[in-house]
Amino acid sequence: MTTATTTTRATVRAYHQARFRSDIPAATRNLAEPFHFQSPLLTSHSPHDHLSGLEAFLGIVTGVDLISELYGESEATLIYDVHTSIPTIGTQRTAEHFHLTSGRIDTIRLIFDATPWHAVMQAAAPY
Amino acid sequence: MTTATTTTRATVRAYHQARFRSDIPAATRNLAEPFHFQSPLLTSHSPHDHLSGLEAFLGIVTGVDLISELYGESEATLIYDVHTSIPTIGTQRTAEHFHLTSGRIDTIRLIFDATPWHAVMQAAAPY
Repeated sequence: MTTATTTTRATVRAYHQARFRSDIPAATRNLAEPFHFQSPLLTSHSPHDHLSGLEAFLGIVTGVDLISELYGESEATLIYDVHTSIPTIGTQRTAEHFHLTSGRIDTIRLIFDATPWHAVMQAAAPY
Repeated sequence: MTTATTTTRATVRAYHQARFRSDIPAATRNLAEPFHFQSPLLTSHSPHDHLSGLEAFLGIVTGVDLISELYGESEATLIYDVHTSIPTIGTQRTAEHFHLTSGRIDTIRLIFDATPWHAVMQAAAPY
């Protein structure tokens, strides 16, 4: 494992652990600016925007099982199952690809089946 | 990169290229038995079952852009965009996690947003 790959692993693990314990300052320290996030449901273009919905999301998370973590010099992919308390969502299998620059995450691509989320988001919409 | 990681890369690359050029015998040579496949829409438990729908799928694929390939000793994850000719599906961002045993793929977990597929599959159902 090269030094760059070791740095990638440390950054992505720190980010992954911080956000699932709702430690937004620690998570933010691992993100670069500019920062870009893409998922089937959302895009955002700053660490603040990306993490602003984290607490609400964690409110429905009951556990996370990491299936795979693979690291390269400037990228990483995690595969994990997110267990939720919402019966229609249940367990959400997720892939998360990270691109890093200078040891910080500048791009996240999140991939999951958003099918059950549409009804949940519609029910939760404020207008 | 260890010898095992080099073998993983060779197997997964051979499989990925073979199935997207519709070469089912070559793709099958990289799969183990027993074999397990999971996606948001399908599960299968043999190489034959898994690859039996490949030609129909490739009929709507117009191109594939590989975003990331990461390899470990007994696993790999590819991230790629599949461009399709179906307007309601468009480009399908996909993560594919492979687990290998003795140099062959014994488990594939495919992750993508299946939201637009439900209407397409319902319209194509034979009964």
